[in-house]
Amino acid sequence: MKSNMFTNNFKFMSMDSSYESSDLVVFGVGFDGTTSNRPGTRFASSAMRKEFDGLETYSPVLNLDMEDFNICDIGDLELSIGNTEKVLDEIYENVRTLINDNKIPFMIGGEHLVTLPAFKAVYEKYNDIYVLHFDAHTDLREEYNNCKNSHATVIKRIWDIVGDEKIFQFGIRSGTKEEFDFSLNKNHTYMEVANIITFKEIVESLVGKNVYLTIDLDVLDPSIFPGTGTPEPGGITYKELENTFKILKQYEINIVGCDIVELSPDYDITKVSTITACKVLRELSLVISNNKK
Amino acid sequence: MKSNMFTNNFKFMSMDSSYESSDLVVFGVGFDGTTSNRPGTRFASSAMRKEFDGLETYSPVLNLDMEDFNICDIGDLELSIGNTEKVLDEIYENVRTLINDNKIPFMIGGEHLVTLPAFKAVYEKYNDIYVLHFDAHTDLREEYNNCKNSHATVIKRIWDIVGDEKIFQFGIRSGTKEEFDFSLNKNHTYMEVANIITFKEIVESLVGKNVYLTIDLDVLDPSIFPGTGTPEPGGITYKELENTFKILKQYEINIVGCDIVELSPDYDITKVSTITACKVLRELSLVISNNKK
Amino acid sequence: MKSNMFTNNFKFMSMDSSYESSDLVVFGVGFDGTTSNRPGTRFASSAMRKEFDGLETYSPVLNLDMEDFNICDIGDLELSIGNTEKVLDEIYENVRTLINDNKIPFMIGGEHLVTLPAFKAVYEKYNDIYVLHFDAHTDLREEYNNCKNSHATVIKRIWDIVGDEKIFQFGIRSGTKEEFDFSLNKNHTYMEVANIITFKEIVESLVGKNVYLTIDLDVLDPSIFPGTGTPEPGGITYKELENTFKILKQYEINIVGCDIVELSPDYDITKVSTITACKVLRELSLVISNNKK
Amino acid sequence: MKSNMFTNNFKFMSMDSSYESSDLVVFGVGFDGTTSNRPGTRFASSAMRKEFDGLETYSPVLNLDMEDFNICDIGDLELSIGNTEKVLDEIYENVRTLINDNKIPFMIGGEHLVTLPAFKAVYEKYNDIYVLHFDAHTDLREEYNNCKNSHATVIKRIWDIVGDEKIFQFGIRSGTKEEFDFSLNKNHTYMEVANIITFKEIVESLVGKNVYLTIDLDVLDPSIFPGTGTPEPGGITYKELENTFKILKQYEINIVGCDIVELSPDYDITKVSTITACKVLRELSLVISNNKK
Amino acid sequence: MKSNMFTNNFKFMSMDSSYESSDLVVFGVGFDGTTSNRPGTRFASSAMRKEFDGLETYSPVLNLDMEDFNICDIGDLELSIGNTEKVLDEIYENVRTLINDNKIPFMIGGEHLVTLPAFKAVYEKYNDIYVLHFDAHTDLREEYNNCKNSHATVIKRIWDIVGDEKIFQFGIRSGTKEEFDFSLNKNHTYMEVANIITFKEIVESLVGKNVYLTIDLDVLDPSIFPGTGTPEPGGITYKELENTFKILKQYEINIVGCDIVELSPDYDITKVSTITACKVLRELSLVISNNKK
Amino acid sequence: MKSNMFTNNFKFMSMDSSYESSDLVVFGVGFDGTTSNRPGTRFASSAMRKEFDGLETYSPVLNLDMEDFNICDIGDLELSIGNTEKVLDEIYENVRTLINDNKIPFMIGGEHLVTLPAFKAVYEKYNDIYVLHFDAHTDLREEYNNCKNSHATVIKRIWDIVGDEKIFQFGIRSGTKEEFDFSLNKNHTYMEVANIITFKEIVESLVGKNVYLTIDLDVLDPSIFPGTGTPEPGGITYKELENTFKILKQYEINIVGCDIVELSPDYDITKVSTITACKVLRELSLVISNNKK
Repeated sequence: MKSNMFTNNFKFMSMDSSYESSDLVVFGVGFDGTTSNRPGTRFASSAMRKEFDGLETYSPVLNLDMEDFNICDIGDLELSIGNTEKVLDEIYENVRTLINDNKIPFMIGGEHLVTLPAFKAVYEKYNDIYVLHFDAHTDLREEYNNCKNSHATVIKRIWDIVGDEKIFQFGIRSGTKEEFDFSLNKNHTYMEVANIITFKEIVESLVGKNVYLTIDLDVLDPSIFPGTGTPEPGGITYKELENTFKILKQYEINIVGCDIVELSPDYDITKVSTITACKVLRELSLVISNNKK
Repeated sequence: MKSNMFTNNFKFMSMDSSYESSDLVVFGVGFDGTTSNRPGTRFASSAMRKEFDGLETYSPVLNLDMEDFNICDIGDLELSIGNTEKVLDEIYENVRTLINDNKIPFMIGGEHLVTLPAFKAVYEKYNDIYVLHFDAHTDLREEYNNCKNSHATVIKRIWDIVGDEKIFQFGIRSGTKEEFDFSLNKNHTYMEVANIITFKEIVESLVGKNVYLTIDLDVLDPSIFPGTGTPEPGGITYKELENTFKILKQYEINIVGCDIVELSPDYDITKVSTITACKVLRELSLVISNNKK
Repeated sequence: MKSNMFTNNFKFMSMDSSYESSDLVVFGVGFDGTTSNRPGTRFASSAMRKEFDGLETYSPVLNLDMEDFNICDIGDLELSIGNTEKVLDEIYENVRTLINDNKIPFMIGGEHLVTLPAFKAVYEKYNDIYVLHFDAHTDLREEYNNCKNSHATVIKRIWDIVGDEKIFQFGIRSGTKEEFDFSLNKNHTYMEVANIITFKEIVESLVGKNVYLTIDLDVLDPSIFPGTGTPEPGGITYKELENTFKILKQYEINIVGCDIVELSPDYDITKVSTITACKVLRELSLVISNNKK
Repeated sequence: MKSNMFTNNFKFMSMDSSYESSDLVVFGVGFDGTTSNRPGTRFASSAMRKEFDGLETYSPVLNLDMEDFNICDIGDLELSIGNTEKVLDEIYENVRTLINDNKIPFMIGGEHLVTLPAFKAVYEKYNDIYVLHFDAHTDLREEYNNCKNSHATVIKRIWDIVGDEKIFQFGIRSGTKEEFDFSLNKNHTYMEVANIITFKEIVESLVGKNVYLTIDLDVLDPSIFPGTGTPEPGGITYKELENTFKILKQYEINIVGCDIVELSPDYDITKVSTITACKVLRELSLVISNNKK
Repeated sequence: MKSNMFTNNFKFMSMDSSYESSDLVVFGVGFDGTTSNRPGTRFASSAMRKEFDGLETYSPVLNLDMEDFNICDIGDLELSIGNTEKVLDEIYENVRTLINDNKIPFMIGGEHLVTLPAFKAVYEKYNDIYVLHFDAHTDLREEYNNCKNSHATVIKRIWDIVGDEKIFQFGIRSGTKEEFDFSLNKNHTYMEVANIITFKEIVESLVGKNVYLTIDLDVLDPSIFPGTGTPEPGGITYKELENTFKILKQYEINIVGCDIVELSPDYDITKVSTITACKVLRELSLVISNNKK
Repeated sequence: MKSNMFTNNFKFMSMDSSYESSDLVVFGVGFDGTTSNRPGTRFASSAMRKEFDGLETYSPVLNLDMEDFNICDIGDLELSIGNTEKVLDEIYENVRTLINDNKIPFMIGGEHLVTLPAFKAVYEKYNDIYVLHFDAHTDLREEYNNCKNSHATVIKRIWDIVGDEKIFQFGIRSGTKEEFDFSLNKNHTYMEVANIITFKEIVESLVGKNVYLTIDLDVLDPSIFPGTGTPEPGGITYKELENTFKILKQYEINIVGCDIVELSPDYDITKVSTITACKVLRELSLVISNNKK
């Protein structure tokens, strides 16, 4: 049809560069199989694609514009829902392909467990890597509901891989006594409770390092982000989170993999949670693309 | 990327044939500028694309499968929102292009006024055409809110074009005394009030004719279809509507243009209204494609 | 201000005749103090005034138009919320004033208990009166939550006044065994369970009598009327209810008092329950006004 | 504490008989791990316990009262969420215990896959058993999302066990062409499409037999039951479903196991879906208890 | 009717002084015809009238009471919905009448475009006027969706009239690079990004001047104000906004025209957005009335 | 039944110690009979029991764990709904029993009026008692809606009992001029408007005293707590409230009675309000239990 008046590309706005030309590759992984409280993060990426159009491509806070970068939305990964281990394999295999193609993967969860296979694939290439982790919950359990691999154990599994002094946790405000003891007293991870005040200092120490960034969006206060499985009052504001993006830009941190997880869109019918996730996606896409250049 | 495990075609499921190979072309027109009650029909097609995936491609009621037909979703028309007349032109021009390409247009509104320019374009080719109209409202006003072109006048405007004995209205249960008088006493249109019992008889008389089918989804009872601008209690059930599709198939009616309008998805957070609109879209796509063969 | 372009009469559309010229007087009584399940019927009349504008003044089913009758909306009764007995007195006194002024009171509840004082005031003038009662629940308890006056006892209290053979109950489908026994076996009231099939026959027997009509809107099926305190599946459809209005018109029944109760608007955010209550209000206002002439 | 004014038994109202004295044992299984569309059936039993209080213990339609039977709510099964096969084992083991204790299990899902292990445990004792299945979906796939055990394959798995002429399906209106062919043409199961008109005839043929009853609540039309994973327009009304309970009572069918599945309560904030599930639970508990006597 | 127990004045509480005696005149303009994202601001004033009753007439923060001022709610302007230019004329004509009658107009939108005709009418009388603008969005586009007059161009159109150094923008955090450049680099308007920290300083410079105040309520963070067309995370808190009202009172700023726009009430079913808009209306009505004295 | 795999204790998680062994006794009082705005606080305790499971037993902010204390949930008080005075008696009698048994009562409202009878019972034992009151509203009216006992008068009634210099109010931001005058100018109570900055200083002065703590949860900003009858913008954040718990722990304040009131759960379908109330309940239960030791 000759007319070009029809919009029929439903990818994330301004993320329609070719795979070959893009450094940053965005994709959705709608798995929520070990979610113990409210499910529904499976719908995050599709809900976000629709609301992303309400944003501008330009970020005044970062003074960067998506139109100046090549970013590619490759869609959503098809999963063997119902079989956790198989799903983890599927994520791992596909992220490994991206890594082998020299792409920076930006994954949209799904529950937090999806970080594990993605991180593993990234780690194979960048094994001297540091992890920046934003979350309301520690995610440091050894086991949960009789499972080793769970949204509640995911950071512990990553610690199994990277060991001490590699993981930095911010905004944490819920967990068992043992989990907090693991970090606060035994220093297996660095943890700032309920705040991100020390972020700048930490980031400064990571200049020149490879960093994996994982954001459980429930790090935000439920007033701005109710659309998640387990809202936890006492979180950080959007402006506090936004400030961390400015810091990451300022120090030109080399982010080699990234994910945002735990948006459960149907629990917030105002769609503000989804819109907030979209803005986080835009700002981080800009920072990562900019720092890469 | 070699992997084919990513879903990144977000068109209506099973409507991804090429434009050239398709008889039936589906598209969205998100205009709700003259809506006088609750707006929001602009979001209908995007909400439907997401929910359509929950359906099967096979219809047991019709014993037809979408996989046996070539159907093409060309996306949503970009509109000059805020300027009603310009929007009507944009719709007209694009539907005319489809008609000239020998396609059957299937438009997803939007408010009911979008039917007027689409019908005009169809009428230019098929001027001996009959109109089947499902609605809760007469839409026969001469003028509304000081406008000749309005969701409340659209069928009157079509009558201006086609004249008496061409329009058949079903399920109507709201309007002014003058509007009902126009049909029931003066017989300018055929109208069945609040029911569709005589549909089979009417359809029988249209065998071999060209038919334009316009369905204002508020013809359905608000119990099954609350997600619309002006819900009107006392409507028909989904099963009654479904039965009309069987009749259209049975008599192999030649539908040369079709639209479904007035889904306002955000007013029904259960998404049942959107899902119902999707099922109507599937059934009608099957009937039209099947009758065309 | 000279301009007449501002709408600042927020009464029910087309119910703005003077008190003196009107036979029918509509008013709200937002009391829900004995509600044992979901409260909120206090908001019914204010929610309805807003949604009523979405209707037309003409009823095609009755072939009557509000513009042909004088109807007066006198607003909402101010109540001593928190003191049940005082509230009942306030309702009684005000309805008595209406009755003394030769008006037909049309009360919008509130919970069903508001019917008791309104009926008492009507009964003082018309003591040979019959009661038509639509409801999902029997409302025939002798006592509820240690109270004699309750939404669950209101019809029993009216029976205390009028005795056997005066009350006709339709659509009833919930209550204790004792309550059903009271009607079905002991015949203290006439009761049709879960249906209104015998309505025409009953109405025929009431020609020439004075009738008080009380409609607990939960008589409707929760599919069309979820916005109520205690939804009860298995109710009648809107069309079945609408048919009773046609019968009341056909037999020119002399309705001397009327109420519709138990709309709890905030429990149905689609607003379909509120719109349905509005349509019931319009149709009954038309029937009562027409029969009075 | 001496006062008995506190309510602190949060079991299903009137289901607090001792385990030993009860024939019928009710329990929740909040598993939704293979759900491919909207999740959340995990919350069904807890949502239902809260809304059940709004019902009466007496059923006028059945003329039976819960107070006349011993029924025991033993609570919700703790599950290894995230590991489908382990969960199936946990259900199986616990239902086997109930069966060995000569109880009739009444399971509240959860997604439909939970029926498989429960049925297996029942089948071990009653291997000449017939299955009555209400559903919108065929559930007859051989495999789904690469899994043999899934909500979409559950009836096929039961057919693997019982073979032809044992399964009777009602209300079915969605599936693949192959699935409908399996039943309608090859007669592996008896299937009535989109209706339950032949139910009485079938039930008549099962007098004296052991029956397992499984109700996917999405058999109901979405107008009355939007709170489910995959609403499918064109379903049966509550009154039609209620009528099947009267038939089961009339023929004193011997139900040895029962489940109701697929209520996803958070998708219907009016709570009508939850209330409807509660009423189904009450009516079936009464029928099963009554027939057992 | 003699009884004064009925409330039938549905104007904004305590805004029922006569038009003649009032300096401040409040009215609604329910136009949302150029809204490109979520529509529904047409319902703002009617939703606010209902919720306003939940406030007190006294403001402890300002130590002012509405009962000490004459304020007049003249209702909602009737509009030719569907014809943008005609609607703009209707607004202009009516505000001009108010201005000619020496009233201070306080308009409740509607979308932000309604500010343009209202401002024009005010400007004709007070052409040495300064504009205080609160918003999340720049609204400085030259054209949007092929339209010169749009919610996204409205401040640019006002700049066309008043020129440089007259417009002060606060809280802005979304727009194109060109729009930010227009203000931040070329200084055509004064703009503070995402904050209102410099407000006091600006206000101090406006003592003795005429000021038009336009508040797009999406300047507030979506956590407190989700009920708007395009929520933008990172906004100001209610307390920050409230503080600006104290500053306006402190410096006795002469506000000659005012509007609050972009409340879309149906998108926030908690009604907190509507209640917040009501509190802004109360506080500003008090400040304007007080400063006028 | 031998299996212990069923969860059938639906009390607040970790509040299942025996009555005898517990110092702290938690119970619900679902009364909202004098609520003048949005009702529904009757459902607070049952909604909270369900959501409480999403929390951990450990509080990182307080470094205390519920598993280290004996706490007993005795359920919900049965009430004579509809008769305010009788309900107040029922509350009083039951709290007196708890007090006589040397328990610390922790009441979950219900509307704020429930505090009056509970306080009276506590006061009989501890008549040299101080009251810490968090609220958005003064609650200092002498009468409301013609009632002395009301949610709007409850603190005035307590002042009638304890007199000057005993009541400390925080976060207050709504009331009549007379009410603020009562506190701010006449010093009958200590009141901090819209903040809790002076809380530490006040608490310091109460070391060694008996304290009754009453928290109207609408003291929180509606952004985090929309689920209440009369949301009032400009409230405190959760972190500010949380900080007061740390102060109460730090000074080992002796709390002899406590309540949290005015959660109306159905008005916040995200459930964040309910979850926030749960977290307040957990933190305060820990502080009170810890200080008691």
